Amino acid sequence: MSETPLQKAYQHTRALSEELVSGLSEADAQIQSMEDASPAKWHLAHTSWFFETLVLARQPGYRPFHPQFNYLFNSYYQGIGAQYARPQRGLLSRPSLEEILQYRRHVDCHMAGVLSGDQGVQLAPIIELGIHHEQQHQELLLMDIKHAFFHNPLYPAYSIRALPEPAPQSELRWLDVDEGLYSIGHDGNGFAFDNEQPRHQQYLQTFKLASRLVTNGEYRQFIRDGGYDNPLLWLSDGWAWRQRSGRTTPLYWLQTEQGWQEFTLHGCQPLEDNRPLVHLTYYEAQAFAQWAGCRLPFEAEWEAAATDTAAGGQFLDLNHLHPITRVGRDSPLSGSVWQWTQSAYGPYPGFKPFEGEAAEYNGKFMCNQLVLRGGACVTPASHFRISYRNFFYPHQAWQFCGIRLAKSA
Amino acid sequence: MSETPLQKAYQHTRALSEELVSGLSEADAQIQSMEDASPAKWHLAHTSWFFETLVLARQPGYRPFHPQFNYLFNSYYQGIGAQYARPQRGLLSRPSLEEILQYRRHVDCHMAGVLSGDQGVQLAPIIELGIHHEQQHQELLLMDIKHAFFHNPLYPAYSIRALPEPAPQSELRWLDVDEGLYSIGHDGNGFAFDNEQPRHQQYLQTFKLASRLVTNGEYRQFIRDGGYDNPLLWLSDGWAWRQRSGRTTPLYWLQTEQGWQEFTLHGCQPLEDNRPLVHLTYYEAQAFAQWAGCRLPFEAEWEAAATDTAAGGQFLDLNHLHPITRVGRDSPLSGSVWQWTQSAYGPYPGFKPFEGEAAEYNGKFMCNQLVLRGGACVTPASHFRISYRNFFYPHQAWQFCGIRLAKSA
Amino acid sequence: MSETPLQKAYQHTRALSEELVSGLSEADAQIQSMEDASPAKWHLAHTSWFFETLVLARQPGYRPFHPQFNYLFNSYYQGIGAQYARPQRGLLSRPSLEEILQYRRHVDCHMAGVLSGDQGVQLAPIIELGIHHEQQHQELLLMDIKHAFFHNPLYPAYSIRALPEPAPQSELRWLDVDEGLYSIGHDGNGFAFDNEQPRHQQYLQTFKLASRLVTNGEYRQFIRDGGYDNPLLWLSDGWAWRQRSGRTTPLYWLQTEQGWQEFTLHGCQPLEDNRPLVHLTYYEAQAFAQWAGCRLPFEAEWEAAATDTAAGGQFLDLNHLHPITRVGRDSPLSGSVWQWTQSAYGPYPGFKPFEGEAAEYNGKFMCNQLVLRGGACVTPASHFRISYRNFFYPHQAWQFCGIRLAKSA
Amino acid sequence: MSETPLQKAYQHTRALSEELVSGLSEADAQIQSMEDASPAKWHLAHTSWFFETLVLARQPGYRPFHPQFNYLFNSYYQGIGAQYARPQRGLLSRPSLEEILQYRRHVDCHMAGVLSGDQGVQLAPIIELGIHHEQQHQELLLMDIKHAFFHNPLYPAYSIRALPEPAPQSELRWLDVDEGLYSIGHDGNGFAFDNEQPRHQQYLQTFKLASRLVTNGEYRQFIRDGGYDNPLLWLSDGWAWRQRSGRTTPLYWLQTEQGWQEFTLHGCQPLEDNRPLVHLTYYEAQAFAQWAGCRLPFEAEWEAAATDTAAGGQFLDLNHLHPITRVGRDSPLSGSVWQWTQSAYGPYPGFKPFEGEAAEYNGKFMCNQLVLRGGACVTPASHFRISYRNFFYPHQAWQFCGIRLAKSA
Repeated sequence: MSETPLQKAYQHTRALSEELVSGLSEADAQIQSMEDASPAKWHLAHTSWFFETLVLARQPGYRPFHPQFNYLFNSYYQGIGAQYARPQRGLLSRPSLEEILQYRRHVDCHMAGVLSGDQGVQLAPIIELGIHHEQQHQELLLMDIKHAFFHNPLYPAYSIRALPEPAPQSELRWLDVDEGLYSIGHDGNGFAFDNEQPRHQQYLQTFKLASRLVTNGEYRQFIRDGGYDNPLLWLSDGWAWRQRSGRTTPLYWLQTEQGWQEFTLHGCQPLEDNRPLVHLTYYEAQAFAQWAGCRLPFEAEWEAAATDTAAGGQFLDLNHLHPITRVGRDSPLSGSVWQWTQSAYGPYPGFKPFEGEAAEYNGKFMCNQLVLRGGACVTPASHFRISYRNFFYPHQAWQFCGIRLAKSA
Repeated sequence: MSETPLQKAYQHTRALSEELVSGLSEADAQIQSMEDASPAKWHLAHTSWFFETLVLARQPGYRPFHPQFNYLFNSYYQGIGAQYARPQRGLLSRPSLEEILQYRRHVDCHMAGVLSGDQGVQLAPIIELGIHHEQQHQELLLMDIKHAFFHNPLYPAYSIRALPEPAPQSELRWLDVDEGLYSIGHDGNGFAFDNEQPRHQQYLQTFKLASRLVTNGEYRQFIRDGGYDNPLLWLSDGWAWRQRSGRTTPLYWLQTEQGWQEFTLHGCQPLEDNRPLVHLTYYEAQAFAQWAGCRLPFEAEWEAAATDTAAGGQFLDLNHLHPITRVGRDSPLSGSVWQWTQSAYGPYPGFKPFEGEAAEYNGKFMCNQLVLRGGACVTPASHFRISYRNFFYPHQAWQFCGIRLAKSA
Repeated sequence: MSETPLQKAYQHTRALSEELVSGLSEADAQIQSMEDASPAKWHLAHTSWFFETLVLARQPGYRPFHPQFNYLFNSYYQGIGAQYARPQRGLLSRPSLEEILQYRRHVDCHMAGVLSGDQGVQLAPIIELGIHHEQQHQELLLMDIKHAFFHNPLYPAYSIRALPEPAPQSELRWLDVDEGLYSIGHDGNGFAFDNEQPRHQQYLQTFKLASRLVTNGEYRQFIRDGGYDNPLLWLSDGWAWRQRSGRTTPLYWLQTEQGWQEFTLHGCQPLEDNRPLVHLTYYEAQAFAQWAGCRLPFEAEWEAAATDTAAGGQFLDLNHLHPITRVGRDSPLSGSVWQWTQSAYGPYPGFKPFEGEAAEYNGKFMCNQLVLRGGACVTPASHFRISYRNFFYPHQAWQFCGIRLAKSA
Repeated sequence: MSETPLQKAYQHTRALSEELVSGLSEADAQIQSMEDASPAKWHLAHTSWFFETLVLARQPGYRPFHPQFNYLFNSYYQGIGAQYARPQRGLLSRPSLEEILQYRRHVDCHMAGVLSGDQGVQLAPIIELGIHHEQQHQELLLMDIKHAFFHNPLYPAYSIRALPEPAPQSELRWLDVDEGLYSIGHDGNGFAFDNEQPRHQQYLQTFKLASRLVTNGEYRQFIRDGGYDNPLLWLSDGWAWRQRSGRTTPLYWLQTEQGWQEFTLHGCQPLEDNRPLVHLTYYEAQAFAQWAGCRLPFEAEWEAAATDTAAGGQFLDLNHLHPITRVGRDSPLSGSVWQWTQSAYGPYPGFKPFEGEAAEYNGKFMCNQLVLRGGACVTPASHFRISYRNFFYPHQAWQFCGIRLAKSA
């Protein structure tokens, strides 16, 4: 009997997670460099917990793999139960990586039964959510191991593949978008998160959107021009962050005896002016836009512009785990890096969270964060949609984020 | 020669500030209970500094009253110069209150010259801004002294006037507003802040807005129903605030031997079920709305609904420094308390900050804060507009803020 | 009927406290610049609370002046009751300074009755303790107002008396003290704190003690020699403090357009090389001693050496509120500044705390602090004894403290 | 040729360190549960670094194993160079455990050459220091892995050996020690740390010392009697710690469905009244002594009493990694747990630190810490001496520490 698309997607996604940790030692998989990040091992377990708790636990006669895993690997679902303290995930040397891989086997085995049974159809929505959930954690895993390795003065390389040489950047052009009513949000064809819905109308004023991302070279001009020392370019909270953090470059830039480098999942690399800028806070993105006489886009502007744009951006499937540029191609709006917008992350009019335990998935984070659009080089291609809304706090920079400029007419 | 409206407004506003401190001792005027608040004395000085720096300092031959006041009383204008550390304002026992009143005399005297001279017309916009600025600080002064007095176990009363007995609350009705395009923002008639502009079109979905504010009695039901202990009602950041703060009531509620009371500018008062609820964080407001099966309005919804609503709310001029209810009247949308909206404070499309030094007035705060609409019992009536956008961080509650519920259709 | 010595001491001490605040405004008396310090007003009230609570409250029929003063003005006596939060003392604008002076009148009036009655003799010990307690607060009041005024960029002068010109420093000589058994602690003649007792024998090794205090000029050499940047001179906790605090001079040194100055109770003064060094942490004192090839003395060494030394140091009664040097006189071991010792503050063998509520006076602080010996220019002369043990945490420097070097043989 | 005692000691100590980690996974060896603790892997590397840097690096032609290990594995020697941030040691997943074991092989191989060569004699003192240094880290490794495992709700057992049943406690008797001059400090026979020297005379007053340690049962009485809620029993800093920490039992006590347990290196065990009390802060120890009408000993008292006492306490070599009691034996003063004294850790009169780079070994910590005496069940027996001075901050409890009571006559 041939496999259903859902079975294929399940297997493909589960396999990819394990492939992503195949080059890590047990110690690599254990470390947690900040509260926002999690150990690779924990990601492997938590994504299995999701299927176990939201799918398998409802099957008659199912016995959980381990009585305490519901506590250890619940991330933030208050409706499901108490959670092991997030900042301490790096202390869980037990269960071992091997036990967690056994846990995955166990879950996969039972899930295979569900997927091939009658319930597969009925449970398809929650299983599909679990697959997309695991894809999100694939990106998080890569972000987190990058952040952890950055704290090691040996600067380990996650991947030993060479990065392609950067191509010369195309000239920046401005895409014009007209004033008018636009339909924003997911149209209901295929999977989408609750926060992308309902599709609704928004009235947009005329605006312009840059044809490509801001580059390292352009950001260096901002630095040379004293951008980090001029409070008038910064938001008030941004300037406070600037003073408090002492930061004067994007997160992963390093001044070395060999000149400026940037730390990547492919190890330390020369800082190339022609590469897209990546890993800066919203505060830095906003100050740069101010300095450039532009602004950051609103998320609806990005979506309105993206609707008519060809896909084909740089996603995880290309296996370059750092934003690259490609000769002779106009870069699409999506791919390479997530792009900060100035839209606060909140509910669309008429927003309804997922039902049941998944209600906590997205809705409860709708405060204090900003939307990023576009997808990154560490995002699985099949995970991305034009209507996708990513969100982070303005001071965070360990996600693969960059800048696409906008202008009011 | 008769006085111009600007002269009258200037004199009225300047006199009111001093009237507001007339019952305070020099020690009362000195204290600062948190970084967000300032001493009454500092408000008196800073509002004078605004006129001195943005108006008088540009007059040929003007000599500043004191060489260090530009440093001591600049609040946050980086373009003007360095500022004395905000959390330490309460340590400035010198200059004395008397010297600051002399400073006001000095500024008023020179401003009278400007206002009656030829330049009055040319400088009218910045003078008008200074008047509205001082009105904002009148409200802040009342918020701040209330917060400071609350830390004193003697619970001093700022005002010894009696508050009127609360009238029975009218039944809650739902105002229906239709889907469609609405013009939002200030229409250009008279003064407005830069952040209320430009007027632009927004497309709104059908919604309902409550005919009156949430009351103490309704909020008590939320508390009795375990609202403070149910994480599913709260935003993720809200629940973190709840755990961290340990708070289980609005800011100024007190459990005493005489039962529940609330601390007001008129001293401790019995907590009346029929009074409008006031002084709670956005997190609490959002959790309450969730519990009530409703939501908080968006700011454009409030403005669209308010446009057709009669004015006449409870403002500072009534001299009741606590929200009251009045028999036999349908409460207007504005007045009594600022109403939390779920709109993040950001720029309107095409927003341009004020020119020159006033550019820092509003724009640089457009991150991490939420808009409140409606005006409060401590807001000067002439300061309020339907398009007025107040903004605070979600954890703040010392402003006079409450809840008006909304619903999607 | 003539006054007893106790009556005289009481009256003199009570009058001095009020004299010390006579030049302060109500705002000056209100401010509190850190948790370790208290407002001048609070010192006036707390010293009265001590007499009211430990003496008057035991008198039949005595009614407390105000029902909440026992809560507001109890410093740290857990056995007596709860205390208003220490870091918030600066927020108590009420009671007013005037009310606190009335409180003092009330306490003085009732104390006069006690002192002239039969109970005076029986209560003499606790009254004497109350007098010495108030003398301690006189010094604290001066330390605290200096610290508060230092935060004001106007640098107010507490005293307008001129300081005498510094005399040339005498050459440093070394006093030799022989190995042997020494009696340490108070001998029982006259008043002493519990922590100075019991007198007991200690065996000391041969040591040398410097004939005078370290000067500003000597400390400047340490700075010029890179003392603040050489971790090998510092204790581990000291170097951590150095990094954390960013400090590179003693507390009150200021680099101004007129060169180096030091902030004093007589306003900003040129930093004179010949003045005794004052206001540095234990960490700095220890690093300096290390740099000088010496060490700090143990407290028993200081006391053993001081026993044979003439008194006559610079105390509060001279009304120079900053350490001075005097021509042609060999400085005594005591006076001018408190001298850091390397002795941790702990109980003498056989230590017994005061009885009753005063048991908390000294004993519960016997951890984490270091002993300072010698008395300072802001210590009432009649308060000081050779056996006196002052104590502070190693990071504190707002007390009038300096260095006298020692050497092992 | 037969091995010298130094060679034997070196080999024995090096082998024991590796034996101690033989049951740990690579993940176990990686985790760090607080800034005060280090990963087991780091201990293995740091102790090798000590020999490499202080012995091998001075050998002509020696090439360091890895150019960055001097940075990664230097603990706190400022004179040797910069150090990788202590709180981040748990992030060093690279070098792997395997590489660190290779590092140990490399160092051992070169050390064998030194030990068998002519220089062995000349370098004996620093090699001996290195051996004692590694022994200290053996105890630290056990303390640290216990602390880390305690954060795992699975409560892993480090050792699967059974603990012997606790024997009934002997009755507490008081050892009397007479007033007089005692020689304190190491007498120069064999190895000692610099801080145990020079031997010198101290005059002690008559005192009594308990014949055995305080037990869990006795501490439970203190708890039942409200000891944790009575501020009058506590030091001021102790009560602040009590409030801040919220602690109401020793560190590793657990209330479970099976009643009170204590977490040990042998896993969770029933809390036996007859076992010696272990893992409490100085603050708790002092409050308990106060409650018991006793006091903690001074370190010189302990040493004076111990001089005449038979050895034979419970040390690491017994392989019971938790304090036990043994029938029919009077417990010696040493062994089982380190005993808090009320002596601040400071220099003996005439103290001279080790020469050269080892000068930082002990001296720079002589501030803010308290001395513990006696050795613990995780201390190698050959590491302990009667004159040994261990030291910790008063709030620390993860060391194996307990209480022996004392009394003044």
